[in-house]
Amino acid sequence: MNVNGRPMRTIWLAADGRTVEIIDQRRLPHELVVARLATLDDAAAAIRDMAVRGAPLIGAAAAYGVALGVAADPSDEGIARASEALAATRPTAVNLHWALDAMRQALLPLPPRRRHDAALARAAEIAEEDVAINRAIGEHGLKLIAAARRRRNVGPVEILTHCNAGWLAAVDWGTALAPIYRAHDSGIPLHVWVDETRPRNQGASLTAWELLQHGVPHTVIADNAGGHLMRRGMVDLCITGTDRTTATGDVANKIGTYLKALAARDNAVPFYVALPSPTIDWTLDDGDRIPIEERNPREVTHIAGWTEAGERVEVRLTPEGSPAANHAFDVTPARLVTGFITERGVCPASREGLLGLFPERRNRGAA
Amino acid sequence: MNVNGRPMRTIWLAADGRTVEIIDQRRLPHELVVARLATLDDAAAAIRDMAVRGAPLIGAAAAYGVALGVAADPSDEGIARASEALAATRPTAVNLHWALDAMRQALLPLPPRRRHDAALARAAEIAEEDVAINRAIGEHGLKLIAAARRRRNVGPVEILTHCNAGWLAAVDWGTALAPIYRAHDSGIPLHVWVDETRPRNQGASLTAWELLQHGVPHTVIADNAGGHLMRRGMVDLCITGTDRTTATGDVANKIGTYLKALAARDNAVPFYVALPSPTIDWTLDDGDRIPIEERNPREVTHIAGWTEAGERVEVRLTPEGSPAANHAFDVTPARLVTGFITERGVCPASREGLLGLFPERRNRGAA
Repeated sequence: MNVNGRPMRTIWLAADGRTVEIIDQRRLPHELVVARLATLDDAAAAIRDMAVRGAPLIGAAAAYGVALGVAADPSDEGIARASEALAATRPTAVNLHWALDAMRQALLPLPPRRRHDAALARAAEIAEEDVAINRAIGEHGLKLIAAARRRRNVGPVEILTHCNAGWLAAVDWGTALAPIYRAHDSGIPLHVWVDETRPRNQGASLTAWELLQHGVPHTVIADNAGGHLMRRGMVDLCITGTDRTTATGDVANKIGTYLKALAARDNAVPFYVALPSPTIDWTLDDGDRIPIEERNPREVTHIAGWTEAGERVEVRLTPEGSPAANHAFDVTPARLVTGFITERGVCPASREGLLGLFPERRNRGAA
Repeated sequence: MNVNGRPMRTIWLAADGRTVEIIDQRRLPHELVVARLATLDDAAAAIRDMAVRGAPLIGAAAAYGVALGVAADPSDEGIARASEALAATRPTAVNLHWALDAMRQALLPLPPRRRHDAALARAAEIAEEDVAINRAIGEHGLKLIAAARRRRNVGPVEILTHCNAGWLAAVDWGTALAPIYRAHDSGIPLHVWVDETRPRNQGASLTAWELLQHGVPHTVIADNAGGHLMRRGMVDLCITGTDRTTATGDVANKIGTYLKALAARDNAVPFYVALPSPTIDWTLDDGDRIPIEERNPREVTHIAGWTEAGERVEVRLTPEGSPAANHAFDVTPARLVTGFITERGVCPASREGLLGLFPERRNRGAA
């Protein structure tokens, strides 16, 4: 999508044809910093430390990470080592494992001397697939927003989203925001309530920045506010992303998603999850078996922002001596989800709904 | 309660017998600053700018504010002016109006020359009443925590609270935290999950500081996390305060309370609201008629904290150009509340429940 009127992606092969460039998302919304990943370790650190984040982008970054690893060591052991290092960075997103599997399948049959070129090609393909998937999610989700527009007599369609599932969470377009960009670009008046998304504030920093850059009307709110807005009839629909969804439709997503789904149900507000198929974990049929990452409590006790002088400063919020906990995701049970927006269309949040769109999964059973 | 082992209250008459001293809560948890209120304007600003906050403390501060106003102008017009100025500071808390009514009733029958002494006496009485009410809430709530302890086989009783309804929100003891202090002091092992409570972080700053000072085990969490903890069986009961409760049991409290009540219901976790009777608005029978304060969006776009060097710094979190909204309260419908903990005992969250404890209200009808 556009940054200062210029199209940009979140990750790309550098001009040298070997290293990889990314937007370092930890500096947004105040600084647009491009960082270079030259080694496997650089890629693993970028994922672990959330310079790149978002389930689809983690997949693409892991694929490029394997390519960087293979450049240094194209042996079977080198590929195994790269996979292990990257798999250990973030436990919840399933795209990571999906991308690592895809890379192994592409590389292991080849002789080592051909693996580096093949790794770069397969990583680029994974990135392009992500763009195509999310463009399709945008098309299918557009119809839901257009329908919400028809139900409304006046005013913009009011959409609530949580965390960042925009183009910064993918290679381009995004998942939850793809339908919003498509609807906005096609002239449907809309307004987005942007959950701040503590503790890392991906909504207040990344989603707000994306929408601002693209000219989409929006308002940042505290995570606490969405329930009140729904009670007062100020939300027409919710759309979020997901880091991993079970074959039965349970959704792991950024901590706090479950609370918004409860409020949507209590107020009869449709709650959709935008879902690229690599995010589906076909081997799981119970959301409570999804591993939930616990991150550093410092993300709760401290926060970084910018002073009037433009200086980035980290400040402490809690008393010294008070412990903090930092569960990064929660699970929203399928019963609270109105539907999934996938690259193949919209379906109910259930095994039958998913199999209706992905019938090739019907005979595989759980792995 | 104790601060560094020394008992302290949130508001008191200064040694000069005329001015009032408060803890300036905006500097907690990093600095314990005592501020002096010498005039009506000082008192109104302290309430409006949240140097003092919390429904019971707002009531006591308003009472002392009237006394400061009467010192300068003891006429009927002076009392009316003081009441108006104080009533305009915060729209949601009903204790404010309750305290102003109590002051007017005490002062207007008296000749102006006797009003200042009477105002100081009545304000002190209101403060003492608050202490007694909250001590009683602590006794009644203790039984609920003891019962939760009996239901548990092992480990501490896990209690989740939102915002600050501790002694800093009252004159002493607090409302939601009074039962917790009583249970802790009586030897029941317990642990408190402290919601950060964006945008003003009263949980992370005030509740955590109170509990730390008193030695109560606790963990600060993002507001987003409570639902996940309840799904995972990590919360035995929730206790919050309230800024205004209708005669039918609908609860206005800090924004985000409704979301936790929904999660409690979805996971069969008891959800109690600690409720001093001056917080009941007997004239209202629908929570959606409670005025909801909208505060400065800067509380969402910016946050203040302390650097390693101990300097207080305010930083921007959102992109410049992204608007923010700041609804300060939400309404939790009575159907989601397990019960009220009042100074007269525990009752169901309903008109009949409240009238059972406050039968003198039965024949008054709605005003």
